[in-house]
Amino acid sequence: MILGNYVHGGDVYKNRVTLDFSANVNPFGTPEPVKAAIRAAAEEVDCYPDPYCTTLREKLSALHGVSPNAILCGNGAAELIFSFVQAVRPKRVLLPVPSFAEYETALRCADATPAFYPLARENGFAVTEEILGEITPDTDVLMLCSPNNPTGKSIGKELLSGILDRCRETGTVLFLDECFQDLCDEDKAFSLAPMLNDGDRVLLLRAFTKTYGMAGVRLGYVISKDRETLLRMSGTVQPWNVSTVAQYAGLAALSCPEWAENARALFAEEKPYLARELRALGVTVLPGDANYLLLSGVPTLYEELLKRGILVRDCGNYRGLQKGDVRIAVRTHAENAALIAAIREALHA
Amino acid sequence: MILGNYVHGGDVYKNRVTLDFSANVNPFGTPEPVKAAIRAAAEEVDCYPDPYCTTLREKLSALHGVSPNAILCGNGAAELIFSFVQAVRPKRVLLPVPSFAEYETALRCADATPAFYPLARENGFAVTEEILGEITPDTDVLMLCSPNNPTGKSIGKELLSGILDRCRETGTVLFLDECFQDLCDEDKAFSLAPMLNDGDRVLLLRAFTKTYGMAGVRLGYVISKDRETLLRMSGTVQPWNVSTVAQYAGLAALSCPEWAENARALFAEEKPYLARELRALGVTVLPGDANYLLLSGVPTLYEELLKRGILVRDCGNYRGLQKGDVRIAVRTHAENAALIAAIREALHA
Repeated sequence: MILGNYVHGGDVYKNRVTLDFSANVNPFGTPEPVKAAIRAAAEEVDCYPDPYCTTLREKLSALHGVSPNAILCGNGAAELIFSFVQAVRPKRVLLPVPSFAEYETALRCADATPAFYPLARENGFAVTEEILGEITPDTDVLMLCSPNNPTGKSIGKELLSGILDRCRETGTVLFLDECFQDLCDEDKAFSLAPMLNDGDRVLLLRAFTKTYGMAGVRLGYVISKDRETLLRMSGTVQPWNVSTVAQYAGLAALSCPEWAENARALFAEEKPYLARELRALGVTVLPGDANYLLLSGVPTLYEELLKRGILVRDCGNYRGLQKGDVRIAVRTHAENAALIAAIREALHA
Repeated sequence: MILGNYVHGGDVYKNRVTLDFSANVNPFGTPEPVKAAIRAAAEEVDCYPDPYCTTLREKLSALHGVSPNAILCGNGAAELIFSFVQAVRPKRVLLPVPSFAEYETALRCADATPAFYPLARENGFAVTEEILGEITPDTDVLMLCSPNNPTGKSIGKELLSGILDRCRETGTVLFLDECFQDLCDEDKAFSLAPMLNDGDRVLLLRAFTKTYGMAGVRLGYVISKDRETLLRMSGTVQPWNVSTVAQYAGLAALSCPEWAENARALFAEEKPYLARELRALGVTVLPGDANYLLLSGVPTLYEELLKRGILVRDCGNYRGLQKGDVRIAVRTHAENAALIAAIREALHA
């Protein structure tokens, strides 16, 4: 928990909302088998969780085609960002912005200084080949997110291979957040996992949170063939950080591959619908590859929607973004239509 | 999760056991209202947890007679040990041993060097007035556990007041682990919470884990009137470290005060029973104040019991203890009788 200011979406506790577009979670919610696993776990929570997450890691290793030793689970993906930074204690970190705010928070907490690499709005905030020139032997760590949060922009396979090669040359540790890969457009979805060699200093971050509606359970993991960094990461946390509830829920989620497929099919319909309707209303829409869209051009959009019981993510506090930049999750058609109606009303109020 | 060696009790996953005496959890398990709260939480886990733990902190503040701002919740008490050390980054830490291993692990992870203060076996590993002389202006942090784990020895009210005063004089931060207070003998139970003044650099660690059979859920908290340290601690972790499941379970647990009372009534019967039977078998028993007992004198006890499907805590890897020191949780009479029978058999095998 935090005592300071909360800078993220999803705070449905402080705000009175009927519709939440601020959290990038699967609009179908939590699969029934995951709910059933949570209910079943209630009978076993008097025991400590398995500190090795043995069964879960076995299933994840089969899914990604890596050894169980290449998997480290955490209390949500967010915890693993902090563990990573604590384990590596980098001096110089290359951090394209805008991006997920917890990278910077975690870096500052470990006295690391991020070197911000601004992504250009006129270029749709895309990471381009220009970044290769920024990766030097002085770059201890490069933190990337693909698809990026909050822009939704993913990095193509070819460029990512080039970045991987460049990091190998310069001895740079590559931390790549793939948390939104499962909900990414199929033609853009791509994981670095199959390209990893033993000893590659690459860490891929993955989450159950978004794909399986498990934000309130907390479960994420890292895939890496950098055994030493994984060992150091595991040494920065208690042995029982992954609850029994999360382990059981995660196992159940892995038996529901259709959950992500159904969501992607929905996004294939709803993203063009939202973009079309929003543009017709004069709202600028960044075409993103993930399950959310970055809007701009209406400075009062956040406040106007909140008045109408709809929570979106005001991105004014993201480094490199500004007031009026707003992230919306793509949800079911009925919800999306309600959002469009509310925006139409707000613009004409 | 960990990738290295597991040094604690409660690993019922790797060992084939029918009876677990290795984890110090309430022998009555999880109260039904807590289980019901976990089952109910399954319906809401697609939302992120409340990052402020608002309702839970309100209830805890009422329970302990402090402001909600004096409460910081964590993913189990263990996480808060790491947060504390990361927040304070102490240089010189006074650490009586034997004690809970995660203190040292957390300290080493933050490059802090513990100054071990050996507690004397011949004195029942009690903390005595002698410790006052060890607390100097050079002592950044004093870490104490009362009742101590694994010895079960608590620190009396008078001595603890003296330690508090001494820490105020020397500017030493006092980290006091009170996780076993709720299951402590009534005449020895005592919290420092009512004695805290604003600005006192004192942090009291509390857990739901043991008292309410919630080890698999993960929920702990710190009580402190040192606002700055709490803020810094909250800055060392993600905003969503306390799951929705844990927050709901914790709220339900607070409606079950009889759960600890019933356990204490059981211990009042079973601790003398166990001590009597064990001594009759020639086992040395340290009379502790908590819900567990430290045994010694039978070097093969751990292995012999494991052969019989009973897991106890081999304390040979605790600093200041040795092979044959074994911690057992006090459980229900039937379980305790089964343990005694197994030890009798092992000794005569």
